[in-house]
Amino acid sequence: MKIGIVGLGLIGGSLGLDLVSQGFEVFGVSRHQKTCDIALSRKAVSHASLDFSILTPVELLFICTPLGAITSTIKSVIPYLSKNTIITDVGSVKQPIVEEITHFYPNFIGGHPMAGTAHQGIEASLLNLFYNAPYVLTPTPSTPVEAIAKLEKIISMLGSKLYFATAEQHDQAVALISHAPVMISAALIDTCCVNQEILELAQNLASSGFRDTSRVGGGNPELGVMMAQFNKKAVLKALYQYEEKLGQIISNIEQENWSLLTEFLEKTQANRPNFLS
Amino acid sequence: MKIGIVGLGLIGGSLGLDLVSQGFEVFGVSRHQKTCDIALSRKAVSHASLDFSILTPVELLFICTPLGAITSTIKSVIPYLSKNTIITDVGSVKQPIVEEITHFYPNFIGGHPMAGTAHQGIEASLLNLFYNAPYVLTPTPSTPVEAIAKLEKIISMLGSKLYFATAEQHDQAVALISHAPVMISAALIDTCCVNQEILELAQNLASSGFRDTSRVGGGNPELGVMMAQFNKKAVLKALYQYEEKLGQIISNIEQENWSLLTEFLEKTQANRPNFLS
Repeated sequence: MKIGIVGLGLIGGSLGLDLVSQGFEVFGVSRHQKTCDIALSRKAVSHASLDFSILTPVELLFICTPLGAITSTIKSVIPYLSKNTIITDVGSVKQPIVEEITHFYPNFIGGHPMAGTAHQGIEASLLNLFYNAPYVLTPTPSTPVEAIAKLEKIISMLGSKLYFATAEQHDQAVALISHAPVMISAALIDTCCVNQEILELAQNLASSGFRDTSRVGGGNPELGVMMAQFNKKAVLKALYQYEEKLGQIISNIEQENWSLLTEFLEKTQANRPNFLS
Repeated sequence: MKIGIVGLGLIGGSLGLDLVSQGFEVFGVSRHQKTCDIALSRKAVSHASLDFSILTPVELLFICTPLGAITSTIKSVIPYLSKNTIITDVGSVKQPIVEEITHFYPNFIGGHPMAGTAHQGIEASLLNLFYNAPYVLTPTPSTPVEAIAKLEKIISMLGSKLYFATAEQHDQAVALISHAPVMISAALIDTCCVNQEILELAQNLASSGFRDTSRVGGGNPELGVMMAQFNKKAVLKALYQYEEKLGQIISNIEQENWSLLTEFLEKTQANRPNFLS
């Protein structure tokens, strides 16, 4: 089976490494010749080009560009493909992409492999990056079942844990467990910087609790803004719900309702392990 | 120098291990004979008793009971001490204790060694637990300078990083970097449990970002409530400031003011490392 990959960064490159190692013929496209050369030398692709025309023979095409370039890339690449080619993407937000693409390219299946490292680019690509990691597919009721079956088979070969969801469900789930936490964590860091008089003491006393709670809020600002931008509706919904929950805690403390606060914290202690399987 | 310790748990026991190993004669008091026996066998104390009367010869006394028992313990033990005995405690909130004790026992210095493990009790006590950890002292303007100097010398022998602050400053700083984060993190866990329809998907997709941001919110409920109870004023102040910061982020997202959101996240990215020295 011939498989194409547009965008040879961490995700595209790692997909290529896995697929080439499993005997697929992989056709890679990058905007940079240097990336093509590295991808070839690392065996992340069988063929590499700057040009979409290389993709004509592929049965399945992974779009692995940054989130903001996915829909425009799909529109540009379609003229080069056979109309039976299955297109999938790896964007971390699904609804806007799925809604826009599906109505003019039925053979599209939104996808989101939830794997990564702290590094970016083809040099950071890794064999087995997706092994044991969640991989969400968001087909619509009109997606051809053969297309889903074909993509499902490839993803199972990566060793990923495959989940199916609607694009909306996916976006709400990642808003809750990934995008909103960035904002929640960033607000904590900024709160600690408000109080100039005790700033230095707070900095000196902060330890593992602060380190963990603040980690994602101190991450890449571009990524955080992109999450809010592309997943605005779900992120806001999550943050409104969060404000309400925090308000409950605050009102328990104000009213010294220690039994209700105890109940709240017992519930969160009991529920957290269900998210850490 | 003879040193006393009331409360032979993780903190009291670890203090004892360090002090005995440095040649001090350590007098330990616990409510349980078994704890006394273990403390003696681990060399966390030189002498152990269920009875405060053992403490009469000590020059310096550490109160290492749970937070809620500190002031009552000090009141009960004072009749057994020489009036020159310096008393210090290890409670994680300082203002209520310092305010109550100082006006009837001038030789008291509030203290907070910020070290711990996931375990509790004398069996969990460790040599060098306080090495390189922050240790805050909160003397008042009327605390005798000789008492401060004597305690400072002992703490420097533990290898701790010593900081001086007012009790109020201490409580505000720990509210920001330790107590409020518990509430902020717990509210996130509960928010993720609101949406029954996507709960299972969210649980399956949660990874390291969620794990870190939710860690302290999934901790011991009793500890969380105790922080809120004893440090109510400072915790509420921190949470009100936090609500305002989160509100700024939400309004930037609502108004699609991506440049302001970028600025915010750039600031938190730049500021976080100052808390991780």
